[in-house]
Amino acid sequence: MRTPKIPILKLGHYLLVSIQVELDDQTALQFQEDLLNKIYETGSSGVVIDLTSVDIIDSFIAKVLSDVMTMSKLLGAKMVLTGIQPAVAVTLIELGVSLADMSTAIDLEKGLETLQRELGE
Amino acid sequence: MRTPKIPILKLGHYLLVSIQVELDDQTALQFQEDLLNKIYETGSSGVVIDLTSVDIIDSFIAKVLSDVMTMSKLLGAKMVLTGIQPAVAVTLIELGVSLADMSTAIDLEKGLETLQRELGE
Repeated sequence: MRTPKIPILKLGHYLLVSIQVELDDQTALQFQEDLLNKIYETGSSGVVIDLTSVDIIDSFIAKVLSDVMTMSKLLGAKMVLTGIQPAVAVTLIELGVSLADMSTAIDLEKGLETLQRELGE
Repeated sequence: MRTPKIPILKLGHYLLVSIQVELDDQTALQFQEDLLNKIYETGSSGVVIDLTSVDIIDSFIAKVLSDVMTMSKLLGAKMVLTGIQPAVAVTLIELGVSLADMSTAIDLEKGLETLQRELGE
């Protein structure tokens, strides 16, 4: 079976991602690779990842999300997570994912506004 | 095997879709249903469908795209297609898909601008 690909949309200087499939380990790793390549190819300055449809995450996925955030920063792109559900927030905290640099917003639109404000574009 | 779902992103009054999987018949029909439900649920006034990653379409998919455009209009949402590749354009024309009401743009960003201009929002 093919790994389902998570589409990455380019909108101006930013990339938008809405995760609407169940994130198994393989899909998450593929997504990590795709997103980093896309940031590099497009020279995007910001990324919004919308987790509205994600009910629950496990420690592996939390680690992948945390890693992709750090890696994006190294590539020069600011990441905003949106639509984090309570259970997902709990998992992220319990697993000690570093939230110091994490920007969040309630939905995709507010996430884009956050990027525009923080990046001054 | 599960039908891969095409994610539909809500951004303000609009919905954004980027088709980055191969559109088999079942996926296309599922997408049609999902999109119409989402337009109804969110009361969106416009939809941008980005076909940048679609190299080729067959007559069934062309019909589904044409239908979903007409149905969206009935629900009160304006649709803009973006990133149509030459081979896709040829197929749409050869199959006699009605292009009278079709708005197009080069990419997602210009598609959103087209909606904003045409809907005056």
